[in-house]
Amino acid sequence: MSACLCFVFLFFSIVAEATYSPGGFHHLSSVRQKKKASKSKHELPFETRYFPQNLDHFSFTPDSYKVFHQKYLINNRFWRKGGPIFVYTGNEGNIDWFASNTGFMLDIAPKFRALLVFIEHRFYGESTPFGKKSHKSAETLGYLNSQQALADYAILIRSLKQNLTSEASPVVVFGGSYGGMLAAWFRLKYPHITIGALASSAPILHFDNIVPLTSFYDAISQDFKDASINCFKVIKRSWEELEAVSTMKNGLQELSKKFRTCKGLHSQYSARDWLSGAFVYTAMVNYPTAANFMAPLPGYPVEQMCKIIDGFPRGSSNLDRAFAAASLYYNYSGSEKCFEMEQQTDDHGLDGWQYQACTEMVMPMSCSNQSMLPPYENDSEAFQEQCMSRYGVKPRPHWITTEFGGMRIETVLKRFGSNIIFSNGMQDPWSRGGVLKNISSSIVALVTKKGAHHADLRAATKDDPEWLKEQRRQEVAIIEKWISEYYRDLREEQ
Amino acid sequence: MSACLCFVFLFFSIVAEATYSPGGFHHLSSVRQKKKASKSKHELPFETRYFPQNLDHFSFTPDSYKVFHQKYLINNRFWRKGGPIFVYTGNEGNIDWFASNTGFMLDIAPKFRALLVFIEHRFYGESTPFGKKSHKSAETLGYLNSQQALADYAILIRSLKQNLTSEASPVVVFGGSYGGMLAAWFRLKYPHITIGALASSAPILHFDNIVPLTSFYDAISQDFKDASINCFKVIKRSWEELEAVSTMKNGLQELSKKFRTCKGLHSQYSARDWLSGAFVYTAMVNYPTAANFMAPLPGYPVEQMCKIIDGFPRGSSNLDRAFAAASLYYNYSGSEKCFEMEQQTDDHGLDGWQYQACTEMVMPMSCSNQSMLPPYENDSEAFQEQCMSRYGVKPRPHWITTEFGGMRIETVLKRFGSNIIFSNGMQDPWSRGGVLKNISSSIVALVTKKGAHHADLRAATKDDPEWLKEQRRQEVAIIEKWISEYYRDLREEQ
Repeated sequence: MSACLCFVFLFFSIVAEATYSPGGFHHLSSVRQKKKASKSKHELPFETRYFPQNLDHFSFTPDSYKVFHQKYLINNRFWRKGGPIFVYTGNEGNIDWFASNTGFMLDIAPKFRALLVFIEHRFYGESTPFGKKSHKSAETLGYLNSQQALADYAILIRSLKQNLTSEASPVVVFGGSYGGMLAAWFRLKYPHITIGALASSAPILHFDNIVPLTSFYDAISQDFKDASINCFKVIKRSWEELEAVSTMKNGLQELSKKFRTCKGLHSQYSARDWLSGAFVYTAMVNYPTAANFMAPLPGYPVEQMCKIIDGFPRGSSNLDRAFAAASLYYNYSGSEKCFEMEQQTDDHGLDGWQYQACTEMVMPMSCSNQSMLPPYENDSEAFQEQCMSRYGVKPRPHWITTEFGGMRIETVLKRFGSNIIFSNGMQDPWSRGGVLKNISSSIVALVTKKGAHHADLRAATKDDPEWLKEQRRQEVAIIEKWISEYYRDLREEQ
Repeated sequence: MSACLCFVFLFFSIVAEATYSPGGFHHLSSVRQKKKASKSKHELPFETRYFPQNLDHFSFTPDSYKVFHQKYLINNRFWRKGGPIFVYTGNEGNIDWFASNTGFMLDIAPKFRALLVFIEHRFYGESTPFGKKSHKSAETLGYLNSQQALADYAILIRSLKQNLTSEASPVVVFGGSYGGMLAAWFRLKYPHITIGALASSAPILHFDNIVPLTSFYDAISQDFKDASINCFKVIKRSWEELEAVSTMKNGLQELSKKFRTCKGLHSQYSARDWLSGAFVYTAMVNYPTAANFMAPLPGYPVEQMCKIIDGFPRGSSNLDRAFAAASLYYNYSGSEKCFEMEQQTDDHGLDGWQYQACTEMVMPMSCSNQSMLPPYENDSEAFQEQCMSRYGVKPRPHWITTEFGGMRIETVLKRFGSNIIFSNGMQDPWSRGGVLKNISSSIVALVTKKGAHHADLRAATKDDPEWLKEQRRQEVAIIEKWISEYYRDLREEQ
């Protein structure tokens, strides 16, 4: 029983964390690729700056006045004074990752003559209020949450505009995944600071049972079914085999060998999570361009995986096939000699997101028997106990919908608010928690039948598919409309 | 110099506090009328309840989970299940005061078959998170602010609807003065919880130099000028005489006698504040109905004061005349034998408002030479020092406009948001910080040329003037429209 609960928790966490950012799926390989990453960091066309922020914007206790330095990146190469400011509302990780994975903003900056700003989310990257101790205790982590982050952004943007003596510049916010949620919420809560938001793959409805708990894994299953029914079946059957192998005598040793792990396995669950993770992440990056890190493979990654699975000789082990498919994800370069499945290190802010998932970002999920992945039921009580034991916090599962809404969102927002684009690609499992229908004439959904986790925010490449080019064209046209409307209003005001 | 600064601070505080609520001007007499007040409290047609709230909604530190009990009043006499819920967003004081001074909601409840709820603001009345120690230190008071209060309201309303199994009931929020600011901000920040707000006499633009610093005292001066130019001049000249008397040998004794103080005066400034206060408060309650506590006098209170001043024989002392006019305010019942001018007690939450004024509610003012009241310059640095020495806090003067907006509000809200009524009476000095023009088809200003501080929220009486009746009729019609639109949307949704 406890192993099962543990699995639920870890599985949820891995999905929520490691997949939950443009850089998310890089987490897994980032340890290995550190040098490479830090080299490319210096190639980003941004100046790094730091802004003093109060620790707590929503209280006035003596502690609240503690100042920390929030990192942000700025590029003014294309900007003319008075012109638009494009701000990326950073999510759970080093802001450099998001800057390097959001080439869309750099691509369109010249057309808009826009200033580009990427703001790092508090408690991630270098923006740690208590330095290395930031993640050590419930006392220090307590100030990590979305409302404080939004307030940070509001204060920084206002100050930046003042320093540039460009107060009248329209600000448009951009974000993907959790950053997309922040962008949408920022427009809703701070319409006086931003004229509009592009919220890409933002699952703002993935809370409080608004969407069915099984929707995330159902979507992944559908992606694989669409590629090949056999592929779906093979993966679905592989879990039993994994269970069977690992419960044999010396089963874990056997499994370690089969899975080419660098060290011996301590639990079958880490192998299961590793395997599941590959399918989850691949569904999220399922689009065929050079911006995709699986790009050395031609075509759509899910199809690639299924080709491997379907290519095995009849009668082959389902587990062997599933492993081979997963290896494609973890070893797309072909250079991995073995796999690390039980990494415990956390130097990329994973822990911060787990803490957020244990406090406000409670996105309950379950995995049905119909799904391709190992079935499990959501267990709120066990989740609560685990959060308490790990971080000393009790989740507030209804808080996000109380603070930001979500229930009956169409009815609420059709009479309130404006200028938000919710973009989604339906092959991204997170799309099921997104806004998929137009709400009003200016709160719109740009949905593509294909499309992965915020593919639209990545840099354009020559081999982008037409649906992706069209989605970006529409985004640009809408943002143009917001900006020209704003300048018209400004002229009328004077 | 220090006396002058002290005066600025105290004067600001008195104006901001004692006048800053429907019950505000009662503060002055409430010490004397305690028994009467506590008797009338029991006559309010409300049931008293308490709701468990977290101390801090915007952090997850161990302290944030501390629970306190928030008081609220409820009346379900007119309600039918599924019908509207009218919520008063309580301001700086005991919620009973606001319930007894907001008869408008009781008046219209039968027509709407509405449930009535009055929620007490945290740190006021009985809703003190740390009991009697709540106001003792910067640590405990730190959690007193408007954003926490709005979150309290959101959580309480959502829970209440759930307990009533009436989740689909439309919620309309009402508030006057600071409570009106909260109502407007609540609609802006929580449109998923409320369908609209009636914000009466809500000076949401009285921040960060959006309106001229002198506007408040200019409006008071205008009220008196409109009643009688001579009256205006007499009051304007009285300050010199007050100064002259008090700086004579035994001047303070002389002044005590002249002003019939219960105890000897320690400073001329308390007499000056007492006198100024009478004119400020009278301008705020300047309308002629039985709901006005100065109602035993016929007509408009400012006119009454000016009649007294103008009625003195030619050559009478300006100070004597000003004192006689002020006595009308402090002794409208005629039963006061002497006046308390140097009260230091605080049992009605005054201190809470001063703290709020020292942290977020920074509404800088100055009083020009053209004004009827003693001139002074706003001195932010001195203000900051005084806040630091009194509460150990540093004001955040730009925070309210960052969090809630206000700058260029018409341009921002004409394209964002809906369903807010900003009602103001132009004789109320706080009106100058209010929204006085329609912003969009559903964010509207109902402005009357006459009219005092949220007179519209008071119970209707048979002798209400036509402008007041009309203002209320319009409010009811607009609220009806919101509600019927909501029910129509609800039907379409199903």
